[in-house]
Amino acid sequence: MRKTLTEIANIVDGEVLGDGNVVITGLCGIKEAKNGDLSFVANPKYFILIEKTLASALLVPRDFTAIAKPVIRVDDPSVAFVKIAALFLEDNLLEHFKGIHPTAIIAPDAQMGKNVSVGPFAVIESKAQIGNNTIIYSGCYVGRKATIGKDCLIYPNVSMRERIQIGDRVIVHSGAVIGSDGFGFVNVKGVHQKIPQIGTVVIEDDVEIGANVTIDRARFDRTIIGRGTKIDNLVHIAHNVTIGEHCIIVAQAGISGSVAIEKNAVLAGQAGIAGHLTIGEGAIVAAQAGVTKSVPAFTMVSGYPAKPHDTAKKVNACVQRLPEYIKTINDLEKKLKSLEDKIDKCALTAVSGKSVKAAAKKSGLRKYSKKK
Amino acid sequence: MRKTLTEIANIVDGEVLGDGNVVITGLCGIKEAKNGDLSFVANPKYFILIEKTLASALLVPRDFTAIAKPVIRVDDPSVAFVKIAALFLEDNLLEHFKGIHPTAIIAPDAQMGKNVSVGPFAVIESKAQIGNNTIIYSGCYVGRKATIGKDCLIYPNVSMRERIQIGDRVIVHSGAVIGSDGFGFVNVKGVHQKIPQIGTVVIEDDVEIGANVTIDRARFDRTIIGRGTKIDNLVHIAHNVTIGEHCIIVAQAGISGSVAIEKNAVLAGQAGIAGHLTIGEGAIVAAQAGVTKSVPAFTMVSGYPAKPHDTAKKVNACVQRLPEYIKTINDLEKKLKSLEDKIDKCALTAVSGKSVKAAAKKSGLRKYSKKK
Amino acid sequence: MRKTLTEIANIVDGEVLGDGNVVITGLCGIKEAKNGDLSFVANPKYFILIEKTLASALLVPRDFTAIAKPVIRVDDPSVAFVKIAALFLEDNLLEHFKGIHPTAIIAPDAQMGKNVSVGPFAVIESKAQIGNNTIIYSGCYVGRKATIGKDCLIYPNVSMRERIQIGDRVIVHSGAVIGSDGFGFVNVKGVHQKIPQIGTVVIEDDVEIGANVTIDRARFDRTIIGRGTKIDNLVHIAHNVTIGEHCIIVAQAGISGSVAIEKNAVLAGQAGIAGHLTIGEGAIVAAQAGVTKSVPAFTMVSGYPAKPHDTAKKVNACVQRLPEYIKTINDLEKKLKSLEDKIDKCALTAVSGKSVKAAAKKSGLRKYSKKK
Repeated sequence: MRKTLTEIANIVDGEVLGDGNVVITGLCGIKEAKNGDLSFVANPKYFILIEKTLASALLVPRDFTAIAKPVIRVDDPSVAFVKIAALFLEDNLLEHFKGIHPTAIIAPDAQMGKNVSVGPFAVIESKAQIGNNTIIYSGCYVGRKATIGKDCLIYPNVSMRERIQIGDRVIVHSGAVIGSDGFGFVNVKGVHQKIPQIGTVVIEDDVEIGANVTIDRARFDRTIIGRGTKIDNLVHIAHNVTIGEHCIIVAQAGISGSVAIEKNAVLAGQAGIAGHLTIGEGAIVAAQAGVTKSVPAFTMVSGYPAKPHDTAKKVNACVQRLPEYIKTINDLEKKLKSLEDKIDKCALTAVSGKSVKAAAKKSGLRKYSKKK
Repeated sequence: MRKTLTEIANIVDGEVLGDGNVVITGLCGIKEAKNGDLSFVANPKYFILIEKTLASALLVPRDFTAIAKPVIRVDDPSVAFVKIAALFLEDNLLEHFKGIHPTAIIAPDAQMGKNVSVGPFAVIESKAQIGNNTIIYSGCYVGRKATIGKDCLIYPNVSMRERIQIGDRVIVHSGAVIGSDGFGFVNVKGVHQKIPQIGTVVIEDDVEIGANVTIDRARFDRTIIGRGTKIDNLVHIAHNVTIGEHCIIVAQAGISGSVAIEKNAVLAGQAGIAGHLTIGEGAIVAAQAGVTKSVPAFTMVSGYPAKPHDTAKKVNACVQRLPEYIKTINDLEKKLKSLEDKIDKCALTAVSGKSVKAAAKKSGLRKYSKKK
Repeated sequence: MRKTLTEIANIVDGEVLGDGNVVITGLCGIKEAKNGDLSFVANPKYFILIEKTLASALLVPRDFTAIAKPVIRVDDPSVAFVKIAALFLEDNLLEHFKGIHPTAIIAPDAQMGKNVSVGPFAVIESKAQIGNNTIIYSGCYVGRKATIGKDCLIYPNVSMRERIQIGDRVIVHSGAVIGSDGFGFVNVKGVHQKIPQIGTVVIEDDVEIGANVTIDRARFDRTIIGRGTKIDNLVHIAHNVTIGEHCIIVAQAGISGSVAIEKNAVLAGQAGIAGHLTIGEGAIVAAQAGVTKSVPAFTMVSGYPAKPHDTAKKVNACVQRLPEYIKTINDLEKKLKSLEDKIDKCALTAVSGKSVKAAAKKSGLRKYSKKK
């Protein structure tokens, strides 16, 4: 697709600064952008990137003034960017199949909404419910009494076990498993006996679940993923976990049983949370952090065991300089030793100095003064 | 389901302490329990939790006496708990489908046991063997000459490659891959040439394998998972690994090639074991530990590189206090410097003190005394 | 299969040293080898293993002389080993099915090469292209306009999304997901809005992709896996990542968005790379390393945050000895204190020593001398 900057400005109710005839042929993040791309910068702290970017033009906030290169001033650059991105999809890049494939197996007592699409070899079990306009790709499994809301998009080979509940506008990527048994056993005389996992999983509206993610069902209750939360690939979410709204869980993070994650929290890649902890509202867990204690709201932790990020950074800085400090310690020991030797000598002489004075006092000097 | 405490006590041959008319409507772990729940506490060290728990009643050992709330005294609280949990399943919560679905493709020369169930779109290849009462869900793949024992439960979309062997009463969760090629190459003039992985995988009886777990086949021999071992989601087990009986491998742990894990060992979440090491019997590897040396039996290691847990904790405590220690070091340096100055002065005066004495000795004092 | 050492030597144009009648019944790595196995050692630094190995015979370089046990001298032991391994497959261990299964669903406008094999319940969407001799196992999904080269091997239940491109001789293991959406959102007034991921994935020739690996499509461009690169199980590769030729990515490693990994680099197990970094040519990232800065070519990093490996080892050695150093610091403090006390005394006496001298000077001694 090709559009001039002016054409694009009209679409997003924006104002061009610089050459409006620049032709845009693609969209890209400001760091990866190439010539011909339109990019955006919403946060003033990234304005410096504008000089470096190869993008031909940028979406910027209304109050942006510099003219290093052609820009479109808009109320919200990122919103405008998403709006324009949609245009570049007009050639059906994101088109999905329509209708129910004859090979799909749908239980007679499943409740199918209007305009549902089901791909080849998908299986929808007894008493399952699928909402309007939801698309279920080939090879997916929807278990007995499972419910999926409307306008959902389920990619190929997703396994959704019995009784799990998925809200509206949820996207689930290939290979994800929702509702597998929680990892619960009691050790009876050295043998691990399975505790039946008879709870379920609740995925609220507008959640996105990455490829090959696993979300275990609760033991007796519900594992909950809050509204608008986005989960990256290969994340593990154990039984009885509750995640609040609008959280971000990055790839390969692992969340142990019964953890509570409050709204707007962020878990970076490969982070791990021990069981029964709470990650407070808006808290950030750094990549690979190993969290062994609950994390207060609006704080950031990192490292293993996870500590407040500033402390962790300070400690780590010290650790990196440890070899030189250890040299210092060894020097100190040497110096101290030699001082101790000096001191002993000094003390000795001091003592003899004393005796002289004593001797002097005893006779001579005093007596003499009497002679006066 | 609703039962009074007395009714439940009769089922598990237990003795009620407190109000036997309390109505139990659910089961739960002691920490997550709510009003109406029955929970259990087997280990005296958790008795303190009884005051905090919201559970309406608890299963406790025979020798338990306190009556903070209604309890049922039994020989083994955890065993009794599992037994009661089964009751709460009477409404067929865990019911599975029956029979072989017409769309399943089963090779004519596959050996099917009695009462085997196979879901839609499952594939069972030539010369595969399936034991009595085993249930294989939709979309599963059972490769040529693979054998699965009796009373197994294989959830949807599991891939079991050719020649792998699975014992009896094994549970495999969705998306697991058993028998993928080991990761083995030889670098020939800068190109990684594949070493054919012609071994297999042996899963012994009563093993449970989590969702999206990967277990590679051995290069020439067998990758072995020992009897009763339980494996959580997203665990990676490389070629030629041997795991003993009744081990616990928690989510996202990774075990490199040819590692030997002895019986009753525990690997916590996201732990990693380097190649060719041995994890001794009953050893515990803490979460996220990076194990670079073999771990002796009945010891616990943590951290990276993994160290005995007590050492690691001690070291970590020191590390956390490093910033203050470094202050101390700097203070010591200053003090020492100023001491050195003092000392030098002191030494000087000491010397002059000496000279006076010498002068005194030389004439005055001695002479004078002679005058007497 | 059974062959004498002499028979095998002839196959690889090798020369027997020792008993050529030794019968070889299997192949194995030198550490795991058992009696009857043939193994190999290419690198002189592993020659010491020859005394320990249980292998009955070994492939060694031409210049090898010791005769601890029967050997075959060849130009390149590892190449010869792979060649012989092929022999041990003659009984069709690695045989695959042939032909297109009637249940496979192939779009009328998909372009199928010669001699392509497609298993049951596989789906090949509109305008997809499959090269000659490629084998696609059951339950695989090939999206619209996706292209797969020739001589590829795709194991069961692999999901390959629309428009992705796979080269020749590529192996993809079960459960892998290629072309899932990149994890990209813009936060608009507290809500994470999805940035359409309209790019794709390009897998070059001779790549191998492990079980349950996830490779995300680029946002607007291409995620690229370079020729000959081998990827182990459960690896995550985010959007816009570019990996060069002949890299090794070990199990459970995670690579964040827009990372560039140059040719011949190695990522060990569970390593994590933060976004937008560069891992230089031939660089090695140790297991579990958390890389927060770009890694120069031909260097090795380890630890979190990742540091040059030698530094990291040195620092870690210091850290492990920290408790004793802290004892030293405390000792130093005590000694210094006691020294300060000594000093003060010493200084005092030194002063009085001085006054005596002064007094002495003032009168006595001088006067007296005048008397002379």
